[in-house]
Amino acid sequence: MPTSPTVQLVDRYPTRSAGSGSMRRTDPTVWGAPETPALATFAHDGYAVFDALLSEAEVATLSAEVTRLTEEPELRLDDRVIIEQSSNQVRSIFEVHKLSPLIAELTRENRIAGLAREVLGSEVYLHQTRVNYLPGFGAAGFYWHSDFETWHAEDGMPAPRAVSLSIALTDNFPYNGSLMVMPGSHRTFVGCAGATPTDHYRESLREQRIGVPTERELTRLAREHGIAQFTGPAGSALLFDSNIMHGSSNNITPFPRSNIFLVFNSVENELVAPFAGPAPRPTYIASRDFTPLR
Amino acid sequence: MPTSPTVQLVDRYPTRSAGSGSMRRTDPTVWGAPETPALATFAHDGYAVFDALLSEAEVATLSAEVTRLTEEPELRLDDRVIIEQSSNQVRSIFEVHKLSPLIAELTRENRIAGLAREVLGSEVYLHQTRVNYLPGFGAAGFYWHSDFETWHAEDGMPAPRAVSLSIALTDNFPYNGSLMVMPGSHRTFVGCAGATPTDHYRESLREQRIGVPTERELTRLAREHGIAQFTGPAGSALLFDSNIMHGSSNNITPFPRSNIFLVFNSVENELVAPFAGPAPRPTYIASRDFTPLR
Repeated sequence: MPTSPTVQLVDRYPTRSAGSGSMRRTDPTVWGAPETPALATFAHDGYAVFDALLSEAEVATLSAEVTRLTEEPELRLDDRVIIEQSSNQVRSIFEVHKLSPLIAELTRENRIAGLAREVLGSEVYLHQTRVNYLPGFGAAGFYWHSDFETWHAEDGMPAPRAVSLSIALTDNFPYNGSLMVMPGSHRTFVGCAGATPTDHYRESLREQRIGVPTERELTRLAREHGIAQFTGPAGSALLFDSNIMHGSSNNITPFPRSNIFLVFNSVENELVAPFAGPAPRPTYIASRDFTPLR
Repeated sequence: MPTSPTVQLVDRYPTRSAGSGSMRRTDPTVWGAPETPALATFAHDGYAVFDALLSEAEVATLSAEVTRLTEEPELRLDDRVIIEQSSNQVRSIFEVHKLSPLIAELTRENRIAGLAREVLGSEVYLHQTRVNYLPGFGAAGFYWHSDFETWHAEDGMPAPRAVSLSIALTDNFPYNGSLMVMPGSHRTFVGCAGATPTDHYRESLREQRIGVPTERELTRLAREHGIAQFTGPAGSALLFDSNIMHGSSNNITPFPRSNIFLVFNSVENELVAPFAGPAPRPTYIASRDFTPLR
């Protein structure tokens, strides 16, 4: 019997189908041989903190750039700009490296993209970029999730060979909704229940409903791994594995949070068709231009 | 002209009326001469933390008692029991010292009521008692407020001569919705806008809408005083002034929070008619039995 010439890509991380459970991650976390000292524990913890990735002057320049973008009247009509319904404020701007030459330049710097190359052991490209502005006085947080679960299901990312870099433009305190991670949870892939509805991304950017781990699984992970919070002054940054379990509380303080969020994927991990979704998400959320960042 | 025999009580803390602004508190915070070392900074900060007010064994006994009360089928129909609508779980039980002899006994102990007497410089009675159970996985927090603003407006408490003691029955982490205070904010009385609707307490126990400070005022207070979080193991306790600005974030972690909450008022600060409310709240929320605790 002749074999089919079509290569069938095996789904090694099943999710959003009956019986999707938790499983041990089968891919490495670190694919290269990082020389940056802060990356020494990345394979074990699934994240690393960089205390002063940007200088104060750079924070000031980039903050002004973000403010400029959020105040651009034309951009408010752009699909890439997410407006919070209740306040009518800009909350996120996607594909920000295409809207701001300043941020495009930043992403290419070796102290930024180089970190991703060290961890992923290959050339990298930008899977997603955005800036987030979360005001105080009650801004909603994000419930627990693994980014890779979404990127795998909805974007067709084959393996968790991607990292995210969150660069703080404001101070992160323990009490203003700063990111929480479960250290070591990246070694478990938590398959989630529920099928992905069409155009799920429109809803999920505001509030996550599908792709949510069970309370039972979150309890198990939190008891095993505990919870760490990313706190630090503006200019500090958190690099984290695509599969780490993370979330954030709401922020009732008067101290807003703003950050630049960059997702680097390995060029050896190009997207295919979604593994559990009707159609790929728009390219401003999940790029299909796999040209290496130089 | 003969003077009226009726003593007109002047409202020294106007709120919930046109032009209610912020003012300097005119009453002392500490009315006695506390000897307990942890109370040395109470007048300045408006709060004090007690690391191991209860032993581990006492925490276990009292936690079992709270669980017993929340599982009592008859109590679910009691007005004093607050059920969270979305989860159908017991969230608070008011007047818990009348429902549990164990907790009644605890409130009378010198290490508990004695702290209130030291601060308030007089005999004290229980203005309010409750146990709270806040599950994880998204339990809502409480927005910023001063308790005294509510007790003054809705219960007729003349002066901020009351303290609250929150005794933790579970561990308080920085990330599971533990109480935030603005240290020193108790020296400012923040009058709030808006009239009190009838039966406001039914709504306000779930979510605070009236008696809410403006964002402008909260920003000013937070910049001046900063924010401190009450963290610590089960058995630790926070004693705080009735007028301190406090609130809590939501709790998306799997770690629930449970506490015993006791409000002591000075017997020299008996309630009168509400200063800005149509009728006094029920006595299980604001006691009118001013018998000193012995």
